[in-house]
Amino acid sequence: MHNFVFQNPVKVVFGKGTIEKLAELIPLEDKVLVAYGGGSVKANGVYDQVLAALKGRDLVEFGGIEPNPRYETLMQAVGLVRAQGVSFLLAVGGGSVLDGVKFVAAASVFEGPEPWDILSCGAPVNRALPLGAVMTLPATGSEMNCFSVVSREETREKLAFGAPAVYPQFSILDPEATFSLPDRQVANGIVDAFAHVMEQYMTYPADAPLQDRMAEAVLATLIEIAPAAMAKPPSYAARADLVWAATMALNGVVGVGVPQDWATHGIGHELTALFGLDHGQTLAVVMPALLRHEMARKKRKLLQYGERIWGVVQGSEDERAVAAVQKTEEFFRSVGVKTRLSEYGITRGWDEVPARFEHRGTKLGEHGDIGAPEVREILELCR
Amino acid sequence: MHNFVFQNPVKVVFGKGTIEKLAELIPLEDKVLVAYGGGSVKANGVYDQVLAALKGRDLVEFGGIEPNPRYETLMQAVGLVRAQGVSFLLAVGGGSVLDGVKFVAAASVFEGPEPWDILSCGAPVNRALPLGAVMTLPATGSEMNCFSVVSREETREKLAFGAPAVYPQFSILDPEATFSLPDRQVANGIVDAFAHVMEQYMTYPADAPLQDRMAEAVLATLIEIAPAAMAKPPSYAARADLVWAATMALNGVVGVGVPQDWATHGIGHELTALFGLDHGQTLAVVMPALLRHEMARKKRKLLQYGERIWGVVQGSEDERAVAAVQKTEEFFRSVGVKTRLSEYGITRGWDEVPARFEHRGTKLGEHGDIGAPEVREILELCR
Repeated sequence: MHNFVFQNPVKVVFGKGTIEKLAELIPLEDKVLVAYGGGSVKANGVYDQVLAALKGRDLVEFGGIEPNPRYETLMQAVGLVRAQGVSFLLAVGGGSVLDGVKFVAAASVFEGPEPWDILSCGAPVNRALPLGAVMTLPATGSEMNCFSVVSREETREKLAFGAPAVYPQFSILDPEATFSLPDRQVANGIVDAFAHVMEQYMTYPADAPLQDRMAEAVLATLIEIAPAAMAKPPSYAARADLVWAATMALNGVVGVGVPQDWATHGIGHELTALFGLDHGQTLAVVMPALLRHEMARKKRKLLQYGERIWGVVQGSEDERAVAAVQKTEEFFRSVGVKTRLSEYGITRGWDEVPARFEHRGTKLGEHGDIGAPEVREILELCR
Repeated sequence: MHNFVFQNPVKVVFGKGTIEKLAELIPLEDKVLVAYGGGSVKANGVYDQVLAALKGRDLVEFGGIEPNPRYETLMQAVGLVRAQGVSFLLAVGGGSVLDGVKFVAAASVFEGPEPWDILSCGAPVNRALPLGAVMTLPATGSEMNCFSVVSREETREKLAFGAPAVYPQFSILDPEATFSLPDRQVANGIVDAFAHVMEQYMTYPADAPLQDRMAEAVLATLIEIAPAAMAKPPSYAARADLVWAATMALNGVVGVGVPQDWATHGIGHELTALFGLDHGQTLAVVMPALLRHEMARKKRKLLQYGERIWGVVQGSEDERAVAAVQKTEEFFRSVGVKTRLSEYGITRGWDEVPARFEHRGTKLGEHGDIGAPEVREILELCR
């Protein structure tokens, strides 16, 4: 096990009927920006529950944060925060709204000339406005971590930052708030949570049997509950399990003290930025290809994963490793997420992805050696 | 899954050579009480590492905190803290030292006449002095929770309290600091961590498959690494796994949103208070007896546990449940911890235990209905 530091201060308020707890979670004296996305929270009643809990408070509304939240949009929110003297930010929605709010929290008090530097060149985020979340979509884990991913329309970039200052003070996770989600978003969320765990697990053995089993616990649970979580009407129990699994997938617990990969996410972000694929779709496309490309170096863990998660015990080591990847791809497809670029109508034009890695000098993967040539090969396997 | 609130702010600093991080973890201006136990930390070099990291600081030393820390001793520390104007408490040792320091942190600023009220009648702990820990014994999980157990010599009582104010600000977990532990303490620690998970897991199904698998992850890991963790010389990898497993066993993660038992601990504390058994020894004695007494009501989980943890799949449901308990008792014995009262020379005199439950009106277990008569029956099964 590697040395590590772990601290996660987020207060998770989990369960049915918990949105009303907002009243005690946000200080009375705060002026609150209530941020949301395309308006589904108004259609499904969540926004009304938020307003009821915050009745009589000094609120400023900011809607329209997109999936893959845009810098251009978020800077409008920054302007509003500064102009109105907002002192607390509340995200109501999914990971994109919360990621956007995290960026707004940091950018609103950023002292440099251009908050984009936080994303483009790692400008330090030493402080941020306090923020909280009411989550409606189990997927990104943003509710219990300090990471944020923001896109820029102008340059078609999608970049991430992380800083302890943007941990939510609280996240309210009411599984019923997810009931009105379209199938596509639930399925993408399942793939996203699964991929988050795989990025922290599917590397090489590192004398960390507990972290391995914790990761396997999340993977096995996602597989078990996926059908019931996708069912109509939704099962409360399965949605509760999905919400908690998505949170545990990326709150730091399964990844302490172990090597991590993140190449699937790195490549996937570029596919979203260039082609507009959903985040979950990009992961379902890239992860099987990445695992095939890296099969030799990931073999020990692929065999463990194949046996413990999928019961793959027959055949040679090579056959079992291939089968483990195949099972992974089949799982993504089983929830309705396609796994090949061609299925999304993309048959060419991805040369820009390795070109960007070349330009930035970025290297990915647990060995830090997946560069432009390897990204090109992996994308070929995504056809 | 039940509704829950989860927040754990402890900063875990894990790994080889991390004691030197104390220099940056405790503010320079603080006057620090350095508390420890019977002096093993002076013999094994840990105390010297602490002093080296805190060179030039304003320190007050307080040694002699016993296993099952005594109220009488801790009140001496409270006197010292108040007289010297101590502003930060550092525990150097195992769970007993840290539990003691948590109580001192609360008692030093307690506003009532008698800090014992915190333990005996739940007097509220709204604030406490800040504290941190350098841990030398993987067992209690105290390093990442807000619980404390304190004994009182005068009345032969052993009582617990918990309050967010006594979360450590940090806990340094250097697996090498455990290398000089006697076998008995390592074995007790393995049993303690195992029992902590069982108290949160071995109840009844509650639509919480992820929590179940997280609990099983810790149990399976403890079983896997126990031989190497007990070996001489100790294996760093196995000790690191044991340290992290003991922490994860009682930092709240495996127990969110599920019913919990804690009857084994409740009865075990009385056996320590009355007969002086080690905490781990009491758990090894009481848990198999409790599981036998509650077999019918715990059967669904016993069958799941038997199959997933011990591979028990043959025989009738009753036979499998019996086998699962038998495996548990054998595991405790495999690390050298005896599981029967008679093996500790105790053949009578335990009537005082149910009498105390009767007197206090305490009811234990996930159904809240294990009272004096049931405690008496369970103790008969501990013979």
